Amino acid sequence: MGGIAAHRVVLAGRPSGWPTQDDFRLEQFTPSPVPAGGLLLRVRYLSLDPYMRMRMDEHSAYAGSVGVGETMHGQAVAEVLRSEHPDYAEGDTVLAPAGWASHAVSDGTGLRKLDPALAPVTTGLGVLGMPGFTAYAGLMVIGKPKPGETVVVSSASGPVGSVVGQLATIAGCRAVGIAGGPGKCRYLREELGFDAAVDHRAPDFAEQLVAACPDGVDVYFENVGGAVWEAVLPLFNRFARVPLCGLIAQYNGVSEAEGDRLAATLRVVLTKNMTVRGFFNTEFVADYYSEFLRIVSAGISDGRITYREDVTEGLERAPEAFLRMLHGQNFGKAVVKVGD
Amino acid sequence: MGGIAAHRVVLAGRPSGWPTQDDFRLEQFTPSPVPAGGLLLRVRYLSLDPYMRMRMDEHSAYAGSVGVGETMHGQAVAEVLRSEHPDYAEGDTVLAPAGWASHAVSDGTGLRKLDPALAPVTTGLGVLGMPGFTAYAGLMVIGKPKPGETVVVSSASGPVGSVVGQLATIAGCRAVGIAGGPGKCRYLREELGFDAAVDHRAPDFAEQLVAACPDGVDVYFENVGGAVWEAVLPLFNRFARVPLCGLIAQYNGVSEAEGDRLAATLRVVLTKNMTVRGFFNTEFVADYYSEFLRIVSAGISDGRITYREDVTEGLERAPEAFLRMLHGQNFGKAVVKVGD
Repeated sequence: MGGIAAHRVVLAGRPSGWPTQDDFRLEQFTPSPVPAGGLLLRVRYLSLDPYMRMRMDEHSAYAGSVGVGETMHGQAVAEVLRSEHPDYAEGDTVLAPAGWASHAVSDGTGLRKLDPALAPVTTGLGVLGMPGFTAYAGLMVIGKPKPGETVVVSSASGPVGSVVGQLATIAGCRAVGIAGGPGKCRYLREELGFDAAVDHRAPDFAEQLVAACPDGVDVYFENVGGAVWEAVLPLFNRFARVPLCGLIAQYNGVSEAEGDRLAATLRVVLTKNMTVRGFFNTEFVADYYSEFLRIVSAGISDGRITYREDVTEGLERAPEAFLRMLHGQNFGKAVVKVGD
Repeated sequence: MGGIAAHRVVLAGRPSGWPTQDDFRLEQFTPSPVPAGGLLLRVRYLSLDPYMRMRMDEHSAYAGSVGVGETMHGQAVAEVLRSEHPDYAEGDTVLAPAGWASHAVSDGTGLRKLDPALAPVTTGLGVLGMPGFTAYAGLMVIGKPKPGETVVVSSASGPVGSVVGQLATIAGCRAVGIAGGPGKCRYLREELGFDAAVDHRAPDFAEQLVAACPDGVDVYFENVGGAVWEAVLPLFNRFARVPLCGLIAQYNGVSEAEGDRLAATLRVVLTKNMTVRGFFNTEFVADYYSEFLRIVSAGISDGRITYREDVTEGLERAPEAFLRMLHGQNFGKAVVKVGD
């Protein structure tokens, strides 16, 4: 391995509440020897995703808490530098769980080859990767949207929400997006074709949401929690479905609500005969991943599905970009360009 | 109609919080004339059910709020006194939405004939009626219990919960009941065959529940809400299902909890990939009612399903019996014997 200037970002300490840059540390390291049949990877792009916040906690509900001093977990687009693996050759581009690092050693587990001729490789981290698949599985398998229904999605300009809204439109639904700020809302309406977009920072957010949903809400794709949940609650129609794939507003353990909102929520779930279903995309991979790739790739090809990326240059800036994303200051799929 | 001494209980005023006897009024009335093709009914048994509390509110989530001065709604077992309806003859016993009254006039809507030779007629209000069907639909259609799984049910000695537990046992599951007081818990274990029963009034209720569910909880049949929900929350296994058919603890609008419990609930729903599904039994009647009658009737015949009734004598005591039920002081299906 001599000669490789490898870097990684490790978890320096466990945050209580919102993380800060002090919770991360950039360090040099020497990649471990490539195992027999394994590979050495050079990371080109690192994905930043909200679930990573949960893995910073000691008892992470998502399997695999990151240990203090260990490399932060994450999916990456990488180039194969050396391969003893029969399925991959030097120069191949792969999707790999390489973590926040410039280089990684792999035995092939969790790797998937990307075809740079088919789509920009970074789409493997977003619209054609786990975020896109989360949108697809949650909306189509759990949400089961029917033409004419209203689909509301929070974090609508993000990599999951933007695909949810565009798939809802393709399914013949009214797509209503919730996002932070007028710029993102304009993007939803003008570039992604949402029927309506509502700014959750607006003082009359709840009233705007009512106006945007004249026929109530049939599917609410929830990945935020908190105040947005409360605004959607009064609008649910009977038999509404809520695919629940994230609770970004809650990841930092800071409650913004006063009093007990559980009673009100359960009462609506009961009286509207609703279905609330928590999920991780992984449970649907075996049955739906190839269908997802086919449909969303086709949507990208014919222009009905577009996407946006928010690229930060340099591994050393990954913590800063991650914190920006947690605060909703990114605009598009958060990606770190680690190397060319 | 001359000669009939008819009585009814009307809603005297809308309660705020827990209702009292002052919210009801017993009065004499003259039944309206029997319409062409209609029937005159004499009520024998009136059913008391928790949903009636919700109908006392002005904006009832359950369709059909009772107006002030109107007869309280309710299912009854009645005898046909006079019939111009082709399907019913004088002397027939029927299940009818007669309300809290000694007599009712009907055009035949919502009537079902009962065979007194098949089972005691009061079972039509409980184990073989809507409570039993609520148990059947919620457990079998939404809960989908698999052999070896753990099914927990609250209000377990009541007409819904007792059927849930016995059906769970028949399905090869571990049945754990939650009830108020050692007498009810003993009944669950010794007479209904629950594997375990936990008294929610015990000071160490949460610890007892943990001990009763060594393999976690796969199905929680929820009809209480409140503190019981919080005790079950930490025990859910991945892919747990929660059929939600009632929230008795919340019907009176008095919150017993401090702080925000919604965040914690949604976090568990998410990370355990749970399904929470609110329902009214009515949505399943067309597809499942005859299957339910067949299976539960067979269970009663072969002794695998037993039931218990809590009978109060006299229509004038219906309010008192209803309040006892809301406070969990009944033991078995609450029924009022109105006439012989």
